[in-house]
Amino acid sequence: MKIPKKIGVLTSGGDAPGMNAAIRAVVRSCTYYNLECVGVYRGLQGLIEGDFEDLNARSVKNIINRGGTFLKSARSKDFLTFEGRKKAFNNLQNENIDALVVIGGDGTFAGASVFIKEFNFPIVGIPGTIDNDINGTDYTIGYDTALNTAVEAIDKIRDTANSHNRLFLVEVMGRDAGDIALNAGIAAGAEEILIPEQNLGRERLLESLSRSKKSGKTSSIVVVCEGDQIGKNIFGLAEYIEENLKEYEVRVTVLGHIQRGGSPSCYDRVLASRLGVGAVDALLRGETNIMIGIVHNRVTSVPFSEAIKGSNEIDEELIRVADIISI
Amino acid sequence: MKIPKKIGVLTSGGDAPGMNAAIRAVVRSCTYYNLECVGVYRGLQGLIEGDFEDLNARSVKNIINRGGTFLKSARSKDFLTFEGRKKAFNNLQNENIDALVVIGGDGTFAGASVFIKEFNFPIVGIPGTIDNDINGTDYTIGYDTALNTAVEAIDKIRDTANSHNRLFLVEVMGRDAGDIALNAGIAAGAEEILIPEQNLGRERLLESLSRSKKSGKTSSIVVVCEGDQIGKNIFGLAEYIEENLKEYEVRVTVLGHIQRGGSPSCYDRVLASRLGVGAVDALLRGETNIMIGIVHNRVTSVPFSEAIKGSNEIDEELIRVADIISI
Amino acid sequence: MKIPKKIGVLTSGGDAPGMNAAIRAVVRSCTYYNLECVGVYRGLQGLIEGDFEDLNARSVKNIINRGGTFLKSARSKDFLTFEGRKKAFNNLQNENIDALVVIGGDGTFAGASVFIKEFNFPIVGIPGTIDNDINGTDYTIGYDTALNTAVEAIDKIRDTANSHNRLFLVEVMGRDAGDIALNAGIAAGAEEILIPEQNLGRERLLESLSRSKKSGKTSSIVVVCEGDQIGKNIFGLAEYIEENLKEYEVRVTVLGHIQRGGSPSCYDRVLASRLGVGAVDALLRGETNIMIGIVHNRVTSVPFSEAIKGSNEIDEELIRVADIISI
Amino acid sequence: MKIPKKIGVLTSGGDAPGMNAAIRAVVRSCTYYNLECVGVYRGLQGLIEGDFEDLNARSVKNIINRGGTFLKSARSKDFLTFEGRKKAFNNLQNENIDALVVIGGDGTFAGASVFIKEFNFPIVGIPGTIDNDINGTDYTIGYDTALNTAVEAIDKIRDTANSHNRLFLVEVMGRDAGDIALNAGIAAGAEEILIPEQNLGRERLLESLSRSKKSGKTSSIVVVCEGDQIGKNIFGLAEYIEENLKEYEVRVTVLGHIQRGGSPSCYDRVLASRLGVGAVDALLRGETNIMIGIVHNRVTSVPFSEAIKGSNEIDEELIRVADIISI
Repeated sequence: MKIPKKIGVLTSGGDAPGMNAAIRAVVRSCTYYNLECVGVYRGLQGLIEGDFEDLNARSVKNIINRGGTFLKSARSKDFLTFEGRKKAFNNLQNENIDALVVIGGDGTFAGASVFIKEFNFPIVGIPGTIDNDINGTDYTIGYDTALNTAVEAIDKIRDTANSHNRLFLVEVMGRDAGDIALNAGIAAGAEEILIPEQNLGRERLLESLSRSKKSGKTSSIVVVCEGDQIGKNIFGLAEYIEENLKEYEVRVTVLGHIQRGGSPSCYDRVLASRLGVGAVDALLRGETNIMIGIVHNRVTSVPFSEAIKGSNEIDEELIRVADIISI
Repeated sequence: MKIPKKIGVLTSGGDAPGMNAAIRAVVRSCTYYNLECVGVYRGLQGLIEGDFEDLNARSVKNIINRGGTFLKSARSKDFLTFEGRKKAFNNLQNENIDALVVIGGDGTFAGASVFIKEFNFPIVGIPGTIDNDINGTDYTIGYDTALNTAVEAIDKIRDTANSHNRLFLVEVMGRDAGDIALNAGIAAGAEEILIPEQNLGRERLLESLSRSKKSGKTSSIVVVCEGDQIGKNIFGLAEYIEENLKEYEVRVTVLGHIQRGGSPSCYDRVLASRLGVGAVDALLRGETNIMIGIVHNRVTSVPFSEAIKGSNEIDEELIRVADIISI
Repeated sequence: MKIPKKIGVLTSGGDAPGMNAAIRAVVRSCTYYNLECVGVYRGLQGLIEGDFEDLNARSVKNIINRGGTFLKSARSKDFLTFEGRKKAFNNLQNENIDALVVIGGDGTFAGASVFIKEFNFPIVGIPGTIDNDINGTDYTIGYDTALNTAVEAIDKIRDTANSHNRLFLVEVMGRDAGDIALNAGIAAGAEEILIPEQNLGRERLLESLSRSKKSGKTSSIVVVCEGDQIGKNIFGLAEYIEENLKEYEVRVTVLGHIQRGGSPSCYDRVLASRLGVGAVDALLRGETNIMIGIVHNRVTSVPFSEAIKGSNEIDEELIRVADIISI
Repeated sequence: MKIPKKIGVLTSGGDAPGMNAAIRAVVRSCTYYNLECVGVYRGLQGLIEGDFEDLNARSVKNIINRGGTFLKSARSKDFLTFEGRKKAFNNLQNENIDALVVIGGDGTFAGASVFIKEFNFPIVGIPGTIDNDINGTDYTIGYDTALNTAVEAIDKIRDTANSHNRLFLVEVMGRDAGDIALNAGIAAGAEEILIPEQNLGRERLLESLSRSKKSGKTSSIVVVCEGDQIGKNIFGLAEYIEENLKEYEVRVTVLGHIQRGGSPSCYDRVLASRLGVGAVDALLRGETNIMIGIVHNRVTSVPFSEAIKGSNEIDEELIRVADIISI
């Protein structure tokens, strides 16, 4: 495999804070190694449409602290077709781009994997998603920031919950994985946390709220993962609780997209910088079809096929901690 | 009218950041003037239930920076009855409380006004509500903080809106008054702002969004006041826009109760401190049935009857500024 | 006086959060009125060096939330000479720039005033400085943000002060004016505030600290304005207190330049937007040699000669409030 | 070894954000296991003075989000003497306290270790210090928050650095360890980072700054660890640079104690909760003379003798990343 001289970089799938820091690290690694670097706008779709821009060390100044991704992101239906991918490959050829760094989640890696097989084109991935649902890395870029955003928001809600002796149901992101809910719930001092990996059931929730009321709590926060079965109808859950626990006024807050934005935390910026450097290093070593991740605080790699398996084992220790400290 | 020796203080209605700072200023003014001070828990309801606690300068340490109200707040149906108010009066008599400072909004002041007439009991009010909908004061306590909270949240949403070329409808608080929407909308760089005082209509909104798309904008934020007619069904509005403006993906975020919480801004803390001192000063001057407010940066007062008239004149200059800078 | 067709805009003097929002409003007002707009880099020095760039509505997207000024600022010695100013005038002529909006403080306005007289060139000013030391406006752009930054920093310091029963001297900005110290001091719950307008003297400070210790306070914050006489040697002051009040450990923190940066508050963004629109409006009305300000929440104007007189009357009411609530 | 029935908890040494969350977890674990819990004020000194308070699950409500430590901390000279420690032991006996959880750094653990040997009293430690300089744990409580605080402050400084084309030297905490400097420096996009583990020398710094100026950078941030040799005289360093690099204006900011305060990050709150639960678990298993830490995201333990060895191996990968991304 020949060593790349011109590397493309793109962000794909849902955006996450720290993606800009990762792009910056990829671009500056290229400068460091005297490689050319090309930014691809709007993810895999931009690859198909040839939406390219040359990037140098100065192109990425003053972006490390910015949320979102300046290369923009998009979901691409065209990339699901061979025709679309063929166009993408032709565009890369025409631009003399030798290798790609793709920053995104499992959908992005799955698409990249197909592309690599079809065109024997070197691609390395970086996990960028607030959901932390990628196998082969302890953390994904954006997850730590999303946690802090969620916790700061719930802190504000607790102010008003306390003032009015109210119960708040707060929905946080996480389609399949309860990591955000579990960690933000512990950190925000939630009385209960509903996650898809664990099926509490409405009755147990009622019992628990009832017990905590009796123990002297005058207000409560229940953090609900959007992917949780009973949480999916969070307004219905609120009604159910109000009907069955007369003493509580219940309010619902859906945190929503504020969890995707904001200036990245120190951790996410450092992680993104390390993985960006690691991705270019890997391409220079001739590696492909892998994702660069962080395991036990060391930069490492894992085949795309492993990364997209997801990681939905539940952390029993955290659940136990949540139970104990919400007593 | 005799000069009070023991003053009660309570917070009532929706909580607002800065209420703790106002309580603190009332308590410490009492210490300054060698008056006793009693905190009443849970607003007018606590008055009826005799939920009192003696407060001194040390009771209110380290609360100036905390959101919510440590005296808690509640809506009181009992206070709407003469029987309830009579109980409240008896409790005040039994505790030798000579005068009250009530921190809240128009509902609180209306209740206080009735009570004053019935029992000739001195009460001075302080405007504490995030809605800024009180007549006779340029600012209410909590409004500045709520604006900053809303703007910070919309900044985060813009990060993800930009990354995905999406249109976001963001609902902010304000049942009757569009002040939060108008100011937060200008500050967050919203393309359109929907407020109850102005009736844009769906068609004009479509036209405007369509025009701004053509002018090169790839993402947009529309700030919607919860009290606005077409905003009241914000999810319906989103569907309507998606149907009629094919090129946009539309997302909805309801900021909700996070706007009520959080550490108060410098402005709110200083305002609360000034009004708290001003309220005790007024009681010592023998004043009653008035609200202490801030007009042209001077502490002033206005009869309760004036304060509760509301202030829903629309600020035409701000609307013009919003139009020009969203071009 | 002919109506301008091409307007230049620059930022000068110390930077302040909200300057970007003001530039944005000037640029978009020009678009609104079909005027051309030119950005001048590095303030008055850029005028002399012809460091210009055409700006349009899209040039200023996504900057309303950014601290600093993208046009950069600088102090210009050359502008103090006629030769320098002549060069500046020639550059403006060559670019067909008809009028200028200058965003800065009293030094900027003084320079502009001389220039207007010499070349009969229309200039309107906007007050942008964190010091709030300009006459003819209740607020300058950046002041509200700087206050919030200072208060948030002191809140953090109080956490550690409380944990260790320590006394902290915290220096905030303000060369001649104690506004930041007085307001941030009240808001942060400081025990004492040292400002240049008031000369407390070391002895009175000692007495007060000693008294507050006896009243049960175990930790204290003293906010010191950098321009205050005894504050100018803040480390010497710390030693003096440690020598004379054995029971206290004293620590010093100089907040410094963090007070100049950060995302502007809602208030500063709205203020900057209003004044930016107001400045272009004024130029179109044929006005010159004036500063656009905000008085009693209305956009207004004042001759440069008035604006630069400074406003160092001390606010006696605020000092009284500070005394009472730190009891 | 008998199983404890009454556990004391204290915080000692420099305070760190998240200490309150750790106390809360210890207290609630006690409730969970039906043990009594006693808070000891002012660390080891409070042990000697018998400054105790019974704590239950409700005593620690609404503190998880607060910086500092409500049990306060202090350095204790008396604890260095056998007489002092004997008094402490007697107080524990008199209160029927069977075991202790001490939250602090290496000094605290060293003191605890001596105490254990002398009195055969069970003690388990939790690492609480912003310095992250404890062996046997990947993270100490407070470190992540301190990093975020430092980065947010440097972000603000960059706003003004960019606006004025200035060089800023920013001093961050870390007496012996450069972890804060290295991570905050990477995250804040610093051009250079001076840490004690690496001895750059003034000349290399000058060269590097000179080179980065030539590469087109108009402003720069140099992050300096307080423990670094050439950083120890940071104002002297500023003069040296100004003399040798004429083109730069240099400014100094010492972040200081703001790095110790502030609401803890999500990570620190979760870590503190896990370690607090883990400490009580360990005491119930009969363990003593150990510190509970986190290694590879698992709660684990290490003898105090290991913990206090410090961890000043330098992370070569991070230094390389810092070099590459500041290109």
